[in-house]
Amino acid sequence: MTKPKAAIIMGSDSDLPVMQKAHEIFRDFEVPCELTVVSAHRTPDRLFEFARGAHERGIEVIIAGAGGAAHLPGMVAAISPLPVIGVPIKSSNSIDGWDSVLSILQMPGGVPVATVALDGAKNAGLLAVQMLSIGDAGLREKMLEYKKQLKESVMEKVSRLESKMGNQAG
Amino acid sequence: MTKPKAAIIMGSDSDLPVMQKAHEIFRDFEVPCELTVVSAHRTPDRLFEFARGAHERGIEVIIAGAGGAAHLPGMVAAISPLPVIGVPIKSSNSIDGWDSVLSILQMPGGVPVATVALDGAKNAGLLAVQMLSIGDAGLREKMLEYKKQLKESVMEKVSRLESKMGNQAG
Amino acid sequence: MTKPKAAIIMGSDSDLPVMQKAHEIFRDFEVPCELTVVSAHRTPDRLFEFARGAHERGIEVIIAGAGGAAHLPGMVAAISPLPVIGVPIKSSNSIDGWDSVLSILQMPGGVPVATVALDGAKNAGLLAVQMLSIGDAGLREKMLEYKKQLKESVMEKVSRLESKMGNQAG
Amino acid sequence: MTKPKAAIIMGSDSDLPVMQKAHEIFRDFEVPCELTVVSAHRTPDRLFEFARGAHERGIEVIIAGAGGAAHLPGMVAAISPLPVIGVPIKSSNSIDGWDSVLSILQMPGGVPVATVALDGAKNAGLLAVQMLSIGDAGLREKMLEYKKQLKESVMEKVSRLESKMGNQAG
Amino acid sequence: MTKPKAAIIMGSDSDLPVMQKAHEIFRDFEVPCELTVVSAHRTPDRLFEFARGAHERGIEVIIAGAGGAAHLPGMVAAISPLPVIGVPIKSSNSIDGWDSVLSILQMPGGVPVATVALDGAKNAGLLAVQMLSIGDAGLREKMLEYKKQLKESVMEKVSRLESKMGNQAG
Amino acid sequence: MTKPKAAIIMGSDSDLPVMQKAHEIFRDFEVPCELTVVSAHRTPDRLFEFARGAHERGIEVIIAGAGGAAHLPGMVAAISPLPVIGVPIKSSNSIDGWDSVLSILQMPGGVPVATVALDGAKNAGLLAVQMLSIGDAGLREKMLEYKKQLKESVMEKVSRLESKMGNQAG
Amino acid sequence: MTKPKAAIIMGSDSDLPVMQKAHEIFRDFEVPCELTVVSAHRTPDRLFEFARGAHERGIEVIIAGAGGAAHLPGMVAAISPLPVIGVPIKSSNSIDGWDSVLSILQMPGGVPVATVALDGAKNAGLLAVQMLSIGDAGLREKMLEYKKQLKESVMEKVSRLESKMGNQAG
Amino acid sequence: MTKPKAAIIMGSDSDLPVMQKAHEIFRDFEVPCELTVVSAHRTPDRLFEFARGAHERGIEVIIAGAGGAAHLPGMVAAISPLPVIGVPIKSSNSIDGWDSVLSILQMPGGVPVATVALDGAKNAGLLAVQMLSIGDAGLREKMLEYKKQLKESVMEKVSRLESKMGNQAG
Repeated sequence: MTKPKAAIIMGSDSDLPVMQKAHEIFRDFEVPCELTVVSAHRTPDRLFEFARGAHERGIEVIIAGAGGAAHLPGMVAAISPLPVIGVPIKSSNSIDGWDSVLSILQMPGGVPVATVALDGAKNAGLLAVQMLSIGDAGLREKMLEYKKQLKESVMEKVSRLESKMGNQAG
Repeated sequence: MTKPKAAIIMGSDSDLPVMQKAHEIFRDFEVPCELTVVSAHRTPDRLFEFARGAHERGIEVIIAGAGGAAHLPGMVAAISPLPVIGVPIKSSNSIDGWDSVLSILQMPGGVPVATVALDGAKNAGLLAVQMLSIGDAGLREKMLEYKKQLKESVMEKVSRLESKMGNQAG
Repeated sequence: MTKPKAAIIMGSDSDLPVMQKAHEIFRDFEVPCELTVVSAHRTPDRLFEFARGAHERGIEVIIAGAGGAAHLPGMVAAISPLPVIGVPIKSSNSIDGWDSVLSILQMPGGVPVATVALDGAKNAGLLAVQMLSIGDAGLREKMLEYKKQLKESVMEKVSRLESKMGNQAG
Repeated sequence: MTKPKAAIIMGSDSDLPVMQKAHEIFRDFEVPCELTVVSAHRTPDRLFEFARGAHERGIEVIIAGAGGAAHLPGMVAAISPLPVIGVPIKSSNSIDGWDSVLSILQMPGGVPVATVALDGAKNAGLLAVQMLSIGDAGLREKMLEYKKQLKESVMEKVSRLESKMGNQAG
Repeated sequence: MTKPKAAIIMGSDSDLPVMQKAHEIFRDFEVPCELTVVSAHRTPDRLFEFARGAHERGIEVIIAGAGGAAHLPGMVAAISPLPVIGVPIKSSNSIDGWDSVLSILQMPGGVPVATVALDGAKNAGLLAVQMLSIGDAGLREKMLEYKKQLKESVMEKVSRLESKMGNQAG
Repeated sequence: MTKPKAAIIMGSDSDLPVMQKAHEIFRDFEVPCELTVVSAHRTPDRLFEFARGAHERGIEVIIAGAGGAAHLPGMVAAISPLPVIGVPIKSSNSIDGWDSVLSILQMPGGVPVATVALDGAKNAGLLAVQMLSIGDAGLREKMLEYKKQLKESVMEKVSRLESKMGNQAG
Repeated sequence: MTKPKAAIIMGSDSDLPVMQKAHEIFRDFEVPCELTVVSAHRTPDRLFEFARGAHERGIEVIIAGAGGAAHLPGMVAAISPLPVIGVPIKSSNSIDGWDSVLSILQMPGGVPVATVALDGAKNAGLLAVQMLSIGDAGLREKMLEYKKQLKESVMEKVSRLESKMGNQAG
Repeated sequence: MTKPKAAIIMGSDSDLPVMQKAHEIFRDFEVPCELTVVSAHRTPDRLFEFARGAHERGIEVIIAGAGGAAHLPGMVAAISPLPVIGVPIKSSNSIDGWDSVLSILQMPGGVPVATVALDGAKNAGLLAVQMLSIGDAGLREKMLEYKKQLKESVMEKVSRLESKMGNQAG
């Protein structure tokens, strides 16, 4: 098995439906990755161990998702020298997502977390790919290709919509 | 020196003006305590060490204050079996205090933090005294006395205000 | 019957589905408790009577849950010398829970309420157990055991998730 | 001295600068009133006594101002059959006034509080006058006069502004 | 038919399910009332006519409910000398009710609106009854009776709950 | 086909159910218009091309709808000299609509966007018609007629409601 | 004097420092305009008279600014067939501007207000110019020129900044 | 001069006091960088040109700061394949920073922006360094060293605080 270059962790297995969007991006871009549950609050030792060892195992970027008072991304960023991408999750114990967003985003000076949109695991995956494409021309090329496809999929919708609506005068 | 029964920790020494209100309460109630800085994000090892050892050193209750994405109270609560009181601080890197409040209050099931009002370190101290008065009749008595004094200080203000305003008819 | 050491009160019987999570914690930790409805706004006399008498009846900690303009926890804390844990409830008359949270959390200096997360009655129960374990080595031991179980239940989910996902490279 | 028909109470004497705006309205409309401090949290007995007795002493309307977790207006409304006007105050322990507003406004069904704008004690006074003018033609007349003066004071500003700006074409 | 003493108006007939709670209160307290639709934005003339004439027709208090940018209560209060009770409605075009609440509550000095909780039409009715009981001993008596019934209905729930839960020790 | 005078663009075809309300207004007022998808983030070139050319093709007003971090209206306004009406959409990736509202409304000095209510595409259409009626007496006349119909439709509801409720005394 | 084509109104003369930014834009673009105070709440008759007559006097667009529960823009839009631009003002009686923004923006279907940013009177002026340039090629040309100047002023700052910072490598 | 690997852009030169914190980090870590003003709204062409060319000129990561309706980071991310770090700025035209935060953070799927805390330019710089240390062992080493210094600076404060407070018992 190829050694993983990215890690996806989440505070609870109930976060999986959101977080697997990041996993799918890695699969599409052929980035070897690992995915597991690390709970800051229920397995603090595991959090420390994970965060301390990740860069030594060859991980280059970490995606961490959590909801409510979401401490996982910030605590991993406190320990690891790697870039950490935080995904705020609108979990069942969240007040409309505001708690997740603010407890991930508002890190103090010295310890950044790269925060993406609420439930934005897909973008977390893409951001990780962009980071990994620093010094990897092949991956950069794939990202340019990805952006082209984004555009094409919009243009197809444009065609469908315009033929449907006729773009007629009122 | 008496062995401390309560610990006051804060994420940064800039939190001291807020947090020393808790210290003053302990002084008034003659509760032996310790006070120091533990940064979840800049000294994660120290956080672990502190949280793991506190109850073994005889600490019975922990007050933790932090601002912004405030992970200190929740992470201590994740590790220690002691009751943890969280003080959200409206620090300079906070969005009107909302981030501090939500990242301390909205803990997941299994790991409580007893949250007090924004910058409410005085109440954190009083809450700790109330906890310590479980099974300590002397401290309970002092708390009843404290409540009597709260009332008396209001009644003095009532006298002053009523004599000033005359409580006159319009 | 064993004399109750903890009391769970709520503003309305419609709060029971939330508040019984605290009751279950007391059952699991074998803490004798009582549970009833006390409405600050519809039965203010009952509120006074309850709050004045609780510590004299041997209650050591009070959990009070309420929604909307939630005055029950704060008013009990105003009258009783006991530690009061407030549970903000996202009731049908609440604006996304913000009113419940703020009217419980933002107590003035002198009268603390130990606030937990929105609908966080389970954590209220755990916090009460932590308070009662001050000077009760047996209960402290159970709390350490509880934290161990939290960890183990996460580790089981880790196993299930990792075997399901294969932690494969992309 | 004329028997007071209105009462102005506030949670703390620090609320006086806001609350005396209501007092001035009563003076202008010649409504006999009383003004004092009643703290829901520090003098709960006084709150009960005040709220129970007000209508028996001839008070017809109560204005209650408080900040933070503001329980005074709602608790008075719980006990007294009189209409209670609540003034949310942006006190020093308030999160931008949201806590005061929500903990006064969001009363449960059965116990209304007539809430006015943040720091809106002047409007509280006017609202009380409007209530007292039910069945008091003289007071109703004064209120109509007051509205006329509001209009005139705007029209004076219009004159000044228009002569200053010239209402010129650009 | 008895001449109505209270008027209930609403911005749209879709507000009726909320606003009829006020109507039911008037029915229960035997307060003669009228109920209709007045749209500030779609029938501004009707708004003016209504607000100018209400007190001349013998109306003593107005309840106005509206959602979104809710201008009806404030505009009626601008024109009429009567006390106006505003009911913020969480209509389909509202952002979680915040727009309705703020555009009714935050009136400028000089023009009060007695605001009740979001969708709080029942409390609007009760508040109107309290106002009308100024100088009406019979209505005051009914209000005291109503409060007694509130208490009794809670006490029944207490009985049911306590017998169900057994109030057992854990 | 008549040359379109108005353009309706949206960030995604999933916005169509909201945005076609604007289209219907143009149809009713017989304003020739075009409607298509332009994604600021996935087709930035198309955005530039559209915004640069619109006024040269005879378009006089642009309606742009988008959700989440909604950059489409503001970027079109940055490039085009035409008035741009922004419709914040509560899309699936939006936090209760706040992100859409704020990222459209809060434009810097120099580059206005005429923002309407959340999901307010109907009003966007009406606003566009009002703009186009500057110097078009016929369209102005239709707008006056439209306002008359708004009033009439309310008056019909008034009749239905009053006959249903009887406007009876309580 | 040239007949005014635009009107600037505001709820209070204290809004002038904000609203004169719109006036300056009209002066710069040589759009004849009038400016005055119209208070929805203190001069409702004046509001009606103004809104009813504006289009008959040759006004083509109205800018209305107000703070707090800001009803002026919406009520003018309810009465006048002209496009109305609303400027939410962070007045002293506003909760951080949210009340002004929401009570102007969230208009119901049928009655649009073109809302600009908080205190965004400059953009209100520019938006009015854009509207007036519909069918006015000269004004359109000036708007294109204005956008060029915006760009140039940025480019000057770029020069100054780059020469100051040296754009040096770290 | 060394070819820059990182670019810092901001919407206005008034953002410089915030954004130069990122510049200082690059200086400390000896990362060659460029810094300039690019306004999405006033220089859209410049935005396009910058975003299209950056990766071709050897830039590997872009930091973009903006306030209010902040479209710069998202629009650059829409065009460039590089990782873009967004810094929400609490500029004078911002509502407490919420608009800046939400219009940068809430990007749609497909176009990520790595958002840091409000005014968090220092963390943006550190995050960029972490990204550049992917495949640059020297930079990784410096980051580990930086984290060590963070810890040491806290430990010095701990010493000062503890000697000042004496960590005495109450």
